[in-house]
Order: sequence, then structure tokens, then C-alpha cells
Amino acid sequence: MRDVSQSLSGWMRGTGPEGDIVLGSRIRLARNLKGIPFPGAATREQLKHVLQIAESIPPAMNSFAPVRLLRMAEVEVLERQLLVEEHLISPEHTKNTHAKGVILAKQDEVSVMINEEDHFRIQVFHPGLQLDGAWRLADTVDDAIEAQLDYAFDQERGYLTACPTNVGTGMRASVMLHLPALKLVNQVTHILGAVTKFGLAVRGLYGEGSDTQASIYQLSNQATLGMSEEGIIERLNRLTNQILEGERQAREYLLSPQNRLATEDRLYRSYGILTNARSISGQEAMALLSDVKLGVELGIITNVDANLLKQLIVLTRPAHLQKVMGQELPPEERDRLRASLIRDTLK
Amino acid sequence: MRDVSQSLSGWMRGTGPEGDIVLGSRIRLARNLKGIPFPGAATREQLKHVLQIAESIPPAMNSFAPVRLLRMAEVEVLERQLLVEEHLISPEHTKNTHAKGVILAKQDEVSVMINEEDHFRIQVFHPGLQLDGAWRLADTVDDAIEAQLDYAFDQERGYLTACPTNVGTGMRASVMLHLPALKLVNQVTHILGAVTKFGLAVRGLYGEGSDTQASIYQLSNQATLGMSEEGIIERLNRLTNQILEGERQAREYLLSPQNRLATEDRLYRSYGILTNARSISGQEAMALLSDVKLGVELGIITNVDANLLKQLIVLTRPAHLQKVMGQELPPEERDRLRASLIRDTLK
Repeated sequence: MRDVSQSLSGWMRGTGPEGDIVLGSRIRLARNLKGIPFPGAATREQLKHVLQIAESIPPAMNSFAPVRLLRMAEVEVLERQLLVEEHLISPEHTKNTHAKGVILAKQDEVSVMINEEDHFRIQVFHPGLQLDGAWRLADTVDDAIEAQLDYAFDQERGYLTACPTNVGTGMRASVMLHLPALKLVNQVTHILGAVTKFGLAVRGLYGEGSDTQASIYQLSNQATLGMSEEGIIERLNRLTNQILEGERQAREYLLSPQNRLATEDRLYRSYGILTNARSISGQEAMALLSDVKLGVELGIITNVDANLLKQLIVLTRPAHLQKVMGQELPPEERDRLRASLIRDTLK
Repeated sequence: MRDVSQSLSGWMRGTGPEGDIVLGSRIRLARNLKGIPFPGAATREQLKHVLQIAESIPPAMNSFAPVRLLRMAEVEVLERQLLVEEHLISPEHTKNTHAKGVILAKQDEVSVMINEEDHFRIQVFHPGLQLDGAWRLADTVDDAIEAQLDYAFDQERGYLTACPTNVGTGMRASVMLHLPALKLVNQVTHILGAVTKFGLAVRGLYGEGSDTQASIYQLSNQATLGMSEEGIIERLNRLTNQILEGERQAREYLLSPQNRLATEDRLYRSYGILTNARSISGQEAMALLSDVKLGVELGIITNVDANLLKQLIVLTRPAHLQKVMGQELPPEERDRLRASLIRDTLK
């Protein structure tokens, strides 16, 4: 079996500050070209024109090499799913692929979706809690593109975007948090419910409505109008740190003398199932990998690399699994091979 | 940790014919002394007299050495439970211990309860399906005792016993069956229900009303009147072989191409939990040990001795667990040490 982790984008393989809880930080900037309708209102010809204009972007991004532009219509269905599973494109970007594209740069730390909801959506991913660093990189990419193109910008309102909630900075900052202890002590709904009052949105690992079996949550700002990029980041940083504090307290609680045995029992049982099951669904795998990751970070389970568990959560998704196996597979066969991949990787 | 299996009686450590499914065979003979009321109707003095008479039995059983007579009142509570867990005495024999006793001989293959429901209950245990052998041994023990004592016997009705169902041969023959495959394919109730129509009784591992978490069932004849010992054994043997056939067919079904993956998955998950749990109840341990025993016998799980699993089912019962640990333990502590003993033993 080949080293599957090499197929993952850089931010997923790496770790960063608070990397035990914060899987990654993402900055997304929505940008549109002046004088061309937003993709939802544009003609097929206009969309095609945007994609042609986008071809001038890769040369401008030389300092983020290697840079490649993929036309979605030319990307195989399985490859599209891989990009979704690594968060490099949205699920919507795989459908209706006319004139859609994506630019990938800097070991996939940078992606630019073309003709998604906006003409361009610049995204930067960093491992761990690195919103500032991700923002600085996104800003540099944005400047490099802006030097080539003419953005739709209004002195009063800022960057113009297809959806009104993005008008202004056009920025969405988000963090991907692994909160297994808060979930175990039944506090996660309460705590995440509280942050929505501060204008933050909470989603599952794969966006709105996706399950949270793995105790992974995406936290991001809702609106951008009337706030600076720094203001958005500062607030998300502050709230993230409060949640981190809550997660760390919950972890201490799980290790307290009266809870330790039950915690060890729960996490080791998950490890036992994960290293012995012969067939496992994606959902169950995520839940068990989440438990084992917590077990390693609590110092209860040894001999397993916590970062490997974070990678396995993505590697055991259907498209990655099929890439590893080198073939398309029916669901039952996927469950069997998922179990096999996990056993081989953890042993 | 000492070799705990040495504390088990011989029939539990050993294996016999059909030993993968038949854990053991037992013959029990109910005998009473002429001229003394059955224990339920006897005075305390009369019961004491029976126990005094019983003291002449061990010397008569020299050929089954080593022989020892235990007076239940002098046996510690924990030791009484050990005898129950190894099936050498009944649970009732641990209560109201006045003038109760038990004679143990031949590495506990032979036990004689004194002043249980009858004055004497001679029991012989053999591993595997060996009803004939157990009956021959029981008959020899019976002859040796009868040479010393005067049994209550009626030419018409045979041996007189406290309970009318035992009148006649006074014999109960039973087999202890592990039927995990029949249980997995939901056929066990159907098949065992059928045998009760042939006058057999079905009980759990520890008698009437005890749970069948471990898929272990005791099968025995209900009545003895009007049948010879050989007739009783022949019928039980025949019905046991039919059940064995059913269990073997169910095992083949579990290994068939369309079921094999699900079977492997189920049994390996049980193994994974068993070898990783940090706290486990007696009931759950029995159920998981049963699964793993099946896994070993199906050739799915390797590196584990199936006989060890059979022993662990008894060794993880409360009294044995406390004997192994050398101390009395509260239930939560028992669950922790049970998990620990199982992990240490299986690894």
C-alpha cells in the first residue's frame, strides 16, 4: 500500500498552533470582475469569457508556484470529489461544470475557484490556528490577481459580491475545530449555540447540514459588511480561543479521577473496534477516529500519531478511498476497504 | 498474575469429543437413605445424622482420590460461590448451610452434595460430549456408596426422591452447549423449543432463569420414571447430535461467501472490544467471549486458544475474579479488573 498521506494537500498533512484542536484555518475572498454579471446572472458566453480572463492569473501567481489551472469540465468525476473532500472546491462546483475552473497553488494551500457563486473565490488554508498568516497570504494572492484584473469595487460598499452577505470585504474567515471532549460532556451544542449570537456560523466538516459524527465543526463569520478584515479575524480568533478553553477544560474533566476509567474505557473500545473491524461506514469511521485522536491527545492511547488520525478522516472518505485503491468501488466494497486501510495504517 | 486456570476443576480445563460446541456432560443421581425423611421434611437432628453418615463415604471412594468432604457451614462465602460458578454445587446449597456438605473427588470430576433436595446428589462431570463415560463413572461411585449405605429404593418405582420427577432412576443427564452460530442466525429459540417437546429441559449457563448472553445452554432430561439410565442417555445423545448438526450448519452458513464479511466483522469487533476495554460487566464479557470463541473455531481469529475462552467465561465470574485478585471487590472495581484479566490473558 502506498503512502496515501502524500495525496493530501499540504495544510492537511501539516500541523500548526493549537493543532490538537484546530485542524485548519481558512480565509476566503469573494471577488468579481467589473462590467460582467455575477455567474448566476451571466450568459454561457460571459462565463466562458471569465474563464478566459482567469487564464492570465497563473502567470501572475508565479511566486506561489507550482500553479495549475483545472477546467472542471475536463476533471474526472472522482478527481472532483477529491477536491471537495480536501475542501479545495465546494460541492456545488462539481455540478454544471460549464466554464467553471479552479487554480491550485503552493501545495494546494491556495485555491481560486472560477465561476462559483462569484467570478473568483480566493481561498487560503493553513494548518492549526493561523488566521492572521492565512489572511496575509490571501491578501498577497489578491494583490497579485488585482494587478492583472479589474475588480468590481464600490468606494462606499467595498467589494461587490453575488450574495449580499459577502459585500464589503468579501471575506469569510473560518476555523475547523475538533471538539470531542465538549461533545462527550454534552456541552458542544450549548457552547456553539452561544457563538452564533456573536454573528458566527457553525457547520459540520463538509459544510451546511453535514454530519458532526467526528466532532468536527467549522466556525466562520456570517457577514462582512461594515467590518475590516482584521476586525473579522480578531473576533473569530477571540471566540475560537474561548472555545479552545472550553474544550481543554472538558478534556481535564474527562481525566479527573472520577471520570478517567470511563474515559479510558470509551476511547480504548473505539480503538479496539477501529483496529479490528472488517467493514466500516464512513460515518462510523469518523466517529471512532475522533475518539482515538482524543485518546492520543489525552495521553491515554500511545503508539499512534494524532496527525495520522486527522488525515484518515479525509483519506477514508469515498473519493480518497477509491483513489488509494485505484478503482471505483460499490459502497459495500468501500466499507470493507475502508476498514482494511484503517487497520493497515494504525498497526 | 498466576495461572488462574489451575484453580478450575478438571472438566473445565479439559476438552472432549465435540468439545468446540459441547463444553461438558453431567450425570446427576439423586439418592436418599432408607428410614430418614427427605431433607425438606427432616429435623435439624436428622439432617445432622445424614451428614454424620456421609462421613463414611470418602473412605469408600478411595479409588477416586483425592477425596475431601466440605461442611458448607465451614466453607467461606467466597469459596461457596466458586463451587457454584464451577457447577459443583447448586446455588441453593450455599444458603441455610446447616448440615449441608459436599464431597469432591477425582479433580472435582465427582461431587456429592449432602442434604440438598435429596440426602445425596452424586454428580459426575466430563468435558465434551461424554454422557456414557460420565454415566459409567457415576454408576461406579454410586455402587461404592451403596456398598456402605442403605438407599431408599422401591422395587416398583425405583429410587425414591424428594421431587416426584426424579423418582425412578433418580438420574438427570445434561449437556452444556455453546450455540453462538444458531443464536446469530436467530434459530436457537426455534431449535431448543423443539427439543422440549421430547421431554428435555433447556436452561442458561447457571440454571433456570440465568441469562444466555454467552449463548451457552444446558439441556437435560425432565423426567426419569419409566426409563432406563441408558434410555435417558441415548435420547439426550441423539437430540444433542441433532442440535450439533444445526449449529455446524449455522456455522457453515456464517462462512458462506455472502455472509463471511459480516461474520468476520462482527467477531473481530468483539475481539477488539474485549482486548481493549478498560471496564466490562460479567454479562458483556460472556457475550464477547462467546463471539471470540466462535471466531477461533471458525478459523477467523487466530492466535487465541478456544479453550482459554471457555475458561475465561467462568474465571471472569465474580467469585473467581475475586479469588484471582486475592480480595473482595466492589462491583465497579470488579468490572475494571475483569477487563484487565481478559486483556492480560488474551495478549
